[in-house]
Amino acid sequence: MATIKNQVIIGVMGGGLADTRQTEMAYRLGNLIAAEGWILLNGGRRAGIMDASARGARENGGITVGILPDADDRHLSPHILIPILTGMGSGRNYINALSSHVMVACPGGAGTVSEIALALKHGRPVILLGMDAGDLFSAYAANGQLKKVDTPTQAIEAIKSYLKNGL
Amino acid sequence: MATIKNQVIIGVMGGGLADTRQTEMAYRLGNLIAAEGWILLNGGRRAGIMDASARGARENGGITVGILPDADDRHLSPHILIPILTGMGSGRNYINALSSHVMVACPGGAGTVSEIALALKHGRPVILLGMDAGDLFSAYAANGQLKKVDTPTQAIEAIKSYLKNGL
Amino acid sequence: MATIKNQVIIGVMGGGLADTRQTEMAYRLGNLIAAEGWILLNGGRRAGIMDASARGARENGGITVGILPDADDRHLSPHILIPILTGMGSGRNYINALSSHVMVACPGGAGTVSEIALALKHGRPVILLGMDAGDLFSAYAANGQLKKVDTPTQAIEAIKSYLKNGL
Amino acid sequence: MATIKNQVIIGVMGGGLADTRQTEMAYRLGNLIAAEGWILLNGGRRAGIMDASARGARENGGITVGILPDADDRHLSPHILIPILTGMGSGRNYINALSSHVMVACPGGAGTVSEIALALKHGRPVILLGMDAGDLFSAYAANGQLKKVDTPTQAIEAIKSYLKNGL
Repeated sequence: MATIKNQVIIGVMGGGLADTRQTEMAYRLGNLIAAEGWILLNGGRRAGIMDASARGARENGGITVGILPDADDRHLSPHILIPILTGMGSGRNYINALSSHVMVACPGGAGTVSEIALALKHGRPVILLGMDAGDLFSAYAANGQLKKVDTPTQAIEAIKSYLKNGL
Repeated sequence: MATIKNQVIIGVMGGGLADTRQTEMAYRLGNLIAAEGWILLNGGRRAGIMDASARGARENGGITVGILPDADDRHLSPHILIPILTGMGSGRNYINALSSHVMVACPGGAGTVSEIALALKHGRPVILLGMDAGDLFSAYAANGQLKKVDTPTQAIEAIKSYLKNGL
Repeated sequence: MATIKNQVIIGVMGGGLADTRQTEMAYRLGNLIAAEGWILLNGGRRAGIMDASARGARENGGITVGILPDADDRHLSPHILIPILTGMGSGRNYINALSSHVMVACPGGAGTVSEIALALKHGRPVILLGMDAGDLFSAYAANGQLKKVDTPTQAIEAIKSYLKNGL
Repeated sequence: MATIKNQVIIGVMGGGLADTRQTEMAYRLGNLIAAEGWILLNGGRRAGIMDASARGARENGGITVGILPDADDRHLSPHILIPILTGMGSGRNYINALSSHVMVACPGGAGTVSEIALALKHGRPVILLGMDAGDLFSAYAANGQLKKVDTPTQAIEAIKSYLKNGL
C-alpha cells in the first residue's frame, strides 16, 4: 500500500422527518459525495435525511458512517456501513460536528440547529442546503464559514471550495 | 428532616463574553433565582454570563451548580458551589439542557444557540432574556414552549408560570 | 456572605444491587460524609448503594448530587437533592470520576470497576470500602492513590488524609 | 450493488505505552483482523497498541476507525482511515465498548480496564490477549463472555466463535 492518508469526511445533517422532495435531495447529495470519494457521516438512523443520504452514498459505492444516539442498533439505517454506537443521545451531536471536515445541513428541526451551532462554534464550515437558519448565524455567514446553497451540486462545489482553501 | 424532595433547577445559559449591561442583567437574574429558593445551573466557567449569574445567586444565598466542559477546575468560577467536571467539551451542553427544569437563555453565541435547541428538542421550556434567536424556533414559540422577555423580573414570572403548569 | 469557596465533593460508587449489609454500610458512609459537611455525589438512581448512601447523607442534612445515566428522572432516588440528567448512559461514569475529589468505591460490578479505573487514570484518589478489586490496580496501591478500608469510619479517615495532603 | 449490510467491527484496546513485543502482537492482530474483512476500531491515537494495530490492519488493506478523545486530530495515528473526533476525553471509552461487536483487550492500564468493564457491562464479548485482569471479572469468565488467549491467531479464533454464536 502506497500512501495511507486520512479521508475527507462530510457530515450530512437533517431531520428524521423529511418529505419526498427533501428525501430526494438528500439521496442525491449522498450520491455526489460518494462520487467524490469522500466519506459520508450522519446520525445513522433509519429515518429521514439520515437514511436517504446514506442510501445515496452506498448506491454509488461510498463509505457511510453513522453516529447513533443509541446504545444498540435497533434504529440503524441499513445503508450505514460503519455504525458508531454512542449511547449518548443528543450528546452525540457534538461528535457529528467535530468529526465533519465540512457539514452540510439539510432541512431539520432543533436537533439539526444544534449541530449547525456546534460545528460553527468549533470552526467547521457549514453549508445550508435548503435549510433556513434565519439570520441567527449571520456573523458566520459574513466571515464565510457559513454558506447557503439551493442544490446538491452547489453543495459539492461549496465543499470543494472549502477543502481547497485548507478549511 | 421532614420532607426530602427534588429542588427546582433553573438553567442560565449565555456567552462567555458579555458587556456590562448583560453582566448586570445576569447578576440580577441569579439574584432573583436564589431568592425563590431555586438552584441555578450553568456552564460553570469564570466568564461572562456564567460567572455573573452564579455570583448573583451566591450573594443571595443560593446554590449554584456548574457543568464544566473541562476535566479540571482551572476555569471554574469562584461563585460555583458545586462544580461538575464533565471533560466532554461542548458535549456538556446536552447535560445543561436536560438538567434544567426551565432554561433562561441570555445573550450568547453559537454555544448558547445549541443549548436552546437541545432544550427545546428535549421538551424543556426556554425563556429568551434579551437574546434574539430570530424566527428559527417559531414553532416552539407558537406552542408556548419558548417565550421572550425583556427583564430578569419577567423571566422569573415566566419560570413560575411554567412551574405552575407542571412543565 | 463571608467567603464563597468550592465544597469538597466525595463520590460514592457501588452497585445497583446490594444486600442488607452493604446497604447499611453505604447508608452509614453517607451519614458520615454529611456530618463532615462534604457533598456526596453518586450515580443518582433509586437502587442499591446509590439510594442508600444518598439517604444516609440526606438524613444527616447533607447535600446529595446524582449524576444520572438517564435523560429523565424516572429512576431518580428521592434522596438526591440535585439531579444531573446526562442522557449519556455509562458515559456518565467518566463524569463521576472527574467530579469526585475523592472516590469511595463500595461493592459493585463492572460499572463500578469502570469508575474506579477512570478515577485512577485521571488522578483521583480511590478508597475501596469492602470492594475487592483483586490486584488489578496494584501500581496505584503502591503509590498511595488507592487504599483499602473495612469500615465507613476508616473511609472517612482516609478521605481526610487525602484532603490534608492536597490530593 | 448487491447487498448492503453492516460490517463486523472488532475493537482493539490497549495502552498508549507498549513495548516491542506488545507492539508486534498488536500489529499482527490488526493484520489478521483486516484479513478477515472485519473493521478495526480503536482509540485512534498515534501511540502504543492503537497505532500498531491500526498499522497492521491498514497494511493488509483493512478499514480502521479511530474514536479519539480529542476535539482535533493532532494526536491522530496516520494509520486511521476514519477518525471520529469526540472531544469527550475518556468519556469516549464507552463508545469504544458499545461500538465493538467483539473487543480484544491488549496490555494496558486503567483506561483499558475501564473499556473492558464497560464492554462486559453492556453485553459485549471481551477477549484478553496477553492482558491480565486478575480475577476481577471472574463472573464473566464463568459465563463465557470473557476469554483469555495468548496469541493473535487464538484471538481471531475466539472472535469467530463469538460471531458464529450470534454474539
